[in-house]
Amino acid sequence: MADRSLLLIPGPTLVPESVLQAMAQHPIGHRSGEFSTLMAEVTAGLQWLHQTTNDVLILTASGTGAMEAGIINFLSPGDRVLCGCNGKFGERWAELCQAFQLQVETITAPWGQPLNPDDFAEKLQADTDKTIKAVIITHSETSTGVINDLATINRHVKAHGQALIMVDAVTSLGATPVPVDDWGLDVVASGSQKGYMIPPGLGFVAVSERAWQAYATAKLPKFYFDLGQYRRDAAKHTTPFTPPVNLFFALRRSLELMQKEGLEQIFARHDRSARMVRAAVAAWNLPLLGAAASASPAVTAVAPTTVDAEKVRSLLKKQFGIAVAGGQDHLKGKIFRIGHLGFAGEREMLTVIAALETVLHQLGQPLTPGSGVGAALQVLETTL
Amino acid sequence: MADRSLLLIPGPTLVPESVLQAMAQHPIGHRSGEFSTLMAEVTAGLQWLHQTTNDVLILTASGTGAMEAGIINFLSPGDRVLCGCNGKFGERWAELCQAFQLQVETITAPWGQPLNPDDFAEKLQADTDKTIKAVIITHSETSTGVINDLATINRHVKAHGQALIMVDAVTSLGATPVPVDDWGLDVVASGSQKGYMIPPGLGFVAVSERAWQAYATAKLPKFYFDLGQYRRDAAKHTTPFTPPVNLFFALRRSLELMQKEGLEQIFARHDRSARMVRAAVAAWNLPLLGAAASASPAVTAVAPTTVDAEKVRSLLKKQFGIAVAGGQDHLKGKIFRIGHLGFAGEREMLTVIAALETVLHQLGQPLTPGSGVGAALQVLETTL
Repeated sequence: MADRSLLLIPGPTLVPESVLQAMAQHPIGHRSGEFSTLMAEVTAGLQWLHQTTNDVLILTASGTGAMEAGIINFLSPGDRVLCGCNGKFGERWAELCQAFQLQVETITAPWGQPLNPDDFAEKLQADTDKTIKAVIITHSETSTGVINDLATINRHVKAHGQALIMVDAVTSLGATPVPVDDWGLDVVASGSQKGYMIPPGLGFVAVSERAWQAYATAKLPKFYFDLGQYRRDAAKHTTPFTPPVNLFFALRRSLELMQKEGLEQIFARHDRSARMVRAAVAAWNLPLLGAAASASPAVTAVAPTTVDAEKVRSLLKKQFGIAVAGGQDHLKGKIFRIGHLGFAGEREMLTVIAALETVLHQLGQPLTPGSGVGAALQVLETTL
Repeated sequence: MADRSLLLIPGPTLVPESVLQAMAQHPIGHRSGEFSTLMAEVTAGLQWLHQTTNDVLILTASGTGAMEAGIINFLSPGDRVLCGCNGKFGERWAELCQAFQLQVETITAPWGQPLNPDDFAEKLQADTDKTIKAVIITHSETSTGVINDLATINRHVKAHGQALIMVDAVTSLGATPVPVDDWGLDVVASGSQKGYMIPPGLGFVAVSERAWQAYATAKLPKFYFDLGQYRRDAAKHTTPFTPPVNLFFALRRSLELMQKEGLEQIFARHDRSARMVRAAVAAWNLPLLGAAASASPAVTAVAPTTVDAEKVRSLLKKQFGIAVAGGQDHLKGKIFRIGHLGFAGEREMLTVIAALETVLHQLGQPLTPGSGVGAALQVLETTL
């Protein structure tokens, strides 16, 4: 079924052949010396990717599970937290905080707009009693293609001095710099089916020393997601519960590929892909959901008014076997989202742009044939 | 590394080649029509395996995560629960219940012995106020190779009339009958790397209507493991959070293989494998950890006194590439455990028995060469 498929959604993302092959090995025992070696290798790779010497713990869970672990391990019922909400995932973290009886204050921006760092500064500066325990930010909003200004918001958190900064880096890690140590990020959660270039099933949480101090007194109940257990076991290169060993094989291979390419090159590639797509969309006179200034390097959301977004998607799928994502919640049917995260690069961008151009032309979008590819090509020439 | 490996531990278990190949396909989008079809197919297969029309929900988690979900969704802080403890996993569920502030009463038996159903009957009959909300049982204790008498314990629970029966079926499902509807089991948790014959990474929870009634008033906080969300989405053939699509591919294929073999044949094969191993161990004059009457169909624990269990394991691994498991917690170094769960069958049993016989002979165990294989062969002839 997937024989003809080119998957350009913001996750699951394309998986390199050698990663698929690594994953298809026969499983090994998770209490073996071989697994300990594997665990040590991937942990070192994860620290490299996160630019940190902090613990980076590996969970059998989706990104949401990783984010839940990142939040509940360091807080207690009634704790006051600020949660940035400008898309589906920010809203999800606010709901999650409510489910765990935290006192959540949301800082919102319309879907498609970035969070305003000044809104955080205001709340944090007013908090002279230091009752704010954590600030929770979705770095790249997968639902809208907007990247939030984590660096600036984090500076305000650091000026506060007490609150922890907790980051959903699910579609930013491996796409744009998330320098955990340089920025002093306390909790950074991510998932395997994004920049990591492996199938879904693993969640990751990087935890700072400051966060571990908060863990010592945090009172939310936990067992499967008790990160203290994962930390103790990770020190012995093992895991508290059975890990998905085949996804670990895949992860080892994908981290090898990433290290071979280099972080700067990976980030440049993502930036280039995003710019190629935006240049093409501009050439077709289609509106983007978000402004270029806050464009995510992982996903671009197009909000067409002259053609039907769902027709674009279905024709693209039917005619070319290319899958792009639709809108979520109230944006369902109103946008389509092109993922350019992970293994996807210049070739895939030229492919999806050429195919989209064909489909848009068929659907009656007034455009000059070749204009999208031409615009993308110019980006490519000036950035390679 | 795994080229020469024959994995005969009680999970991860052997994975058929066609399942590995199914898993190694390129991922598909989890919000696609293709995924919905896949989800509907595997859900139907799971219901067949559980012999139920209840919901069988699929989580991205290990078996422990599935068990946590199975417990926390139906209970509230302070609820009184009975937890059977006769091995590492029973003890784990008691710890988990304590972490979630349940009022846990353990019913214990020594590691290697089965739980005594009368102990449950006594507690349940004495509970005339019906304060016991749930009885939690590990069906097959993976740590000791003992199967608990779930049918009888469950009858006592049914006589109580109020308590839910929650079952860790991690190494019993797909190895021995777990007739969910016939027995009226309320919560049944399992994990993919066992009888399912696929790598670790998926957890499963079957939930009865009675359990859903308890869900409506249960007050433990939850989000990632909120089974109500999974149920609502499963009705639309989707999942609340990104599922590990490649493991779903593997699951579809393994369920196909299982349905082709048939439940009765699968159970007979596991029983035969277990008997072959026990017959060989008896022929070598080695003691089993547990009595034959409560022998798990999934794993056999051998407790040698005349040879060093760890030396047996390491020689078996070094000389033949066969991995068997060691003991856990206080049984570390004192036992070795042969997994005969999932894809392993007569051929693998003859292999491991022949290899073990060689290794034991080398280590000075007084045995007649050929006696183990001979005994296994007789079981095979009388049961095939």
